[in-house]
Formats: sequence, structure tokens, C-alpha cells
Amino acid sequence: MTKIAVCVCSGGIDSTIAATIASHEGYELHFFHASYGQRAEDREKETVKKIARYLGAKDLKLAEIPFLKELGGSALTDIKREVPVAEEVNLDVEKETPSTWVPCRNLILLAHASAYAEVIGAEALSVGFNAEEARSYPDNELEFVKRYNVVLEKAVASFSQPPVVKAPLVQLLKPAIIKKGVEVEAPLHLTYSCYFGEEKHCGICESCLHRRRGFKDAGVEDPTEYMH
Amino acid sequence: MTKIAVCVCSGGIDSTIAATIASHEGYELHFFHASYGQRAEDREKETVKKIARYLGAKDLKLAEIPFLKELGGSALTDIKREVPVAEEVNLDVEKETPSTWVPCRNLILLAHASAYAEVIGAEALSVGFNAEEARSYPDNELEFVKRYNVVLEKAVASFSQPPVVKAPLVQLLKPAIIKKGVEVEAPLHLTYSCYFGEEKHCGICESCLHRRRGFKDAGVEDPTEYMH
Repeated sequence: MTKIAVCVCSGGIDSTIAATIASHEGYELHFFHASYGQRAEDREKETVKKIARYLGAKDLKLAEIPFLKELGGSALTDIKREVPVAEEVNLDVEKETPSTWVPCRNLILLAHASAYAEVIGAEALSVGFNAEEARSYPDNELEFVKRYNVVLEKAVASFSQPPVVKAPLVQLLKPAIIKKGVEVEAPLHLTYSCYFGEEKHCGICESCLHRRRGFKDAGVEDPTEYMH
Repeated sequence: MTKIAVCVCSGGIDSTIAATIASHEGYELHFFHASYGQRAEDREKETVKKIARYLGAKDLKLAEIPFLKELGGSALTDIKREVPVAEEVNLDVEKETPSTWVPCRNLILLAHASAYAEVIGAEALSVGFNAEEARSYPDNELEFVKRYNVVLEKAVASFSQPPVVKAPLVQLLKPAIIKKGVEVEAPLHLTYSCYFGEEKHCGICESCLHRRRGFKDAGVEDPTEYMH
């Protein structure tokens, strides 16, 4: 019987590698991308389409989550707030809520993806949560994943088999993730990480800085281009 | 210091009574309603506006959740599926997933309301989950609430105080809920429960049947009108 995974994918390296791993594990892939007003949403959608095609996905759902944009409260979704760049960025443990925090984002994203998984009878939800982002964002921690899986059992209908969130990178930092990506032959050349959504990576936002440092520390050449 | 509650409200009796209880407990009320493609969404919004005004709410957020409509899979959101009425309805324990089940609905709704709560610094989320609906819908059970509160601690930023879901009716069936509503002087005359969204209650859908039986068994006169 076909086993199905819903791959929550932003088009970045982590979620793309997680989806590649799910593919190797024999899942039929159904991609899920969410637009929640983030600056890069159009670029992300275009990227996720390419990645889904590359990995032979069976389907791709592009969800709109307008409430998060309306709510604001984040530099990623509120055009009036500045996204920190270069030396304004703190790549390690935060001392206050980062301006790029989007309230309850991963919970909202996973809840949507879980509804999709319930409807198509998916066994798994694949996510790119990882230890590097968990330094700033608790909704990337293993503990978040574990707790989410527990509530999910009660969030689906009594007669549905609850899907399980799989986060194969949850204990890894970027260099190990990138090495893993090379090992599983993930389409790193198609990935896009920048908060700004321009054609090339800006190279200086938090997300680009994590990416660059990860590739450098992994000793792997980044196949994508940077503006700075 | 002002303590704030986000009141998740459909305009039905349960969530309206829960909000009234939160008001008596001294919370400043911020109402939250979600449109997810349910047939009655316009009627619900109009109802919730009246209830929020009646209870002196500080604010009301009307969220759109278009993905649930797009996903379908429920008689409530898919116009091509029939909503069961009269003898087609099973008011007690279900033997299969009811056609009115909306995939992961309460998880998605609560995740949105939690983002709102995080942004405004609310301590509590008020919901009308109850034992009668929990017979058919596991996302109304006390166990769901408990598990949700556990994941919510990790779904908000590390420096945010996680809000707590309060479900004061979670152990009660409709007659006890209605008696409670009379006791706390909830605006039952403003509430609307029908799945169809017409001006008056249809009187024969699952939601109307629960309501009618509840009022009858509580020995309380329903101040609203029915078509059938």
C-alpha cells in the first residue's frame, strides 16, 4: 500500500532535505507550502514548485494563511518593520524575541498541513525543523515536535489514523544538515533561503547568514548565487 | 494589570457562555471568529459582532481560513455534500466519522487564536468545547485541551508568556450548559447555532437538534426562533 508524506516545504535547504529523505524512505510526496504574508512568499512558491517537480511529488498544495499577515507582529510579514541584516543579526542564542519571530507560525502551518494529511490519509508530515533554528525559535525544537504529535492524535477524527510529524534534522546544526543533503542528493541548487525574496540570495539576512555559515563550515560549495 | 482573554466564538451557545464566564472572571475580552468556508459563516459573523458588543468586548478579530474551504472533505464546507437533517442525524456516539467533521478544525482555529493571543499578550483563550460535542468530535475533549496547552508552551516565542486554553464547559452536556448560561446571564437570545446560516434556526440539523434537546432537557425556553 502506498504510504504518503505531506512535505511542509518553504523552499529552503532544511525542508528540501527533509523531503528528499522522505522520498528515499519510499513515501509518495505531497508538498505543502504556506503563504502567510512573508516577504519572500512568491519566490518561495516558485522554488517549491521546482523542488516538488524534481522530487517527483504527486501533488503540491499552496495554502494562503491571511490572518498571520493581518496580525503582523513580525518583521517578516510587516513591511513597516525592518528585517535585520549583517551585524544586526544574532545567529546564536537569542536574549529576546527576534523581530523575525512570526507568532505561532509553525503551529499554524502544521495544523494546516495536518488537515491536508488527514484528508489524503497521509501517514507522515515531513518538516525541516533543526537545532540551529531552535536556538531562536522554540517551535523548531524536538520537544515541540513531540508535543505536537501528542495533540495531533486528538485533533483528527476518531476514525482517522493520526499522521506523525517526522523531523529528521531536528538534532542537527546547518553544517551537518548540508552534509546530509549532499549525501541524499537533495536538490540544493534549487533551494532558496533569503528573507527578502529577490532573485538572488541577499547574503546578509539571518537566513542567508545561517545558510552561508553552514555551507562554509560543511566545506561544501553553495550552488546558488548571492548579491552581497 | 489588565488580564486579557481571547474568546474563540462561533456565535453558538457554548462559546457565548464560555465568553460570558470569562467576562465574569474579570478578563478584558478580545473576540475571535473564524470563517473557514462553513455555510453559516456570514450569519456567524453578524451574531458574534452582536455578542461581542453585548459583552463589552475590547476588540473582535474576524479571521479568514481559506485553506479549509479549499480542502473540502466536510459537509459544512463543501456545498456539494449534504448536511444531514432530522432522522439522518446521530446525536450520540458516532460509529464513523460524521460528514460534518472538518479536518483538524479546532487545532487550526486555536492555532490562529493563539497567534492573536501571543501578539496582544492574552493570558487565556476561552473556548466552548463541551462533553456533548466531544461524543462526535475528539477535538472537543478535555484531553485535547490539555494536550494543546502543552504544545502551546513551545509554539510561542521563548520570551512570551504562553496563554492557556480555558474550556469551562468541557465536562458538561447541553442541558447543564444551558442552565449555566442562564445562571451567568449569557446573551442566549443573541446566539445562533444552525449549520445552514438562514435567518432563523432550521431546527433539524445536528447543531439545531443538540440545541433544542438541550433547552428542552434543561427546562428552559429557547429565546430564538425555528423554521421547523
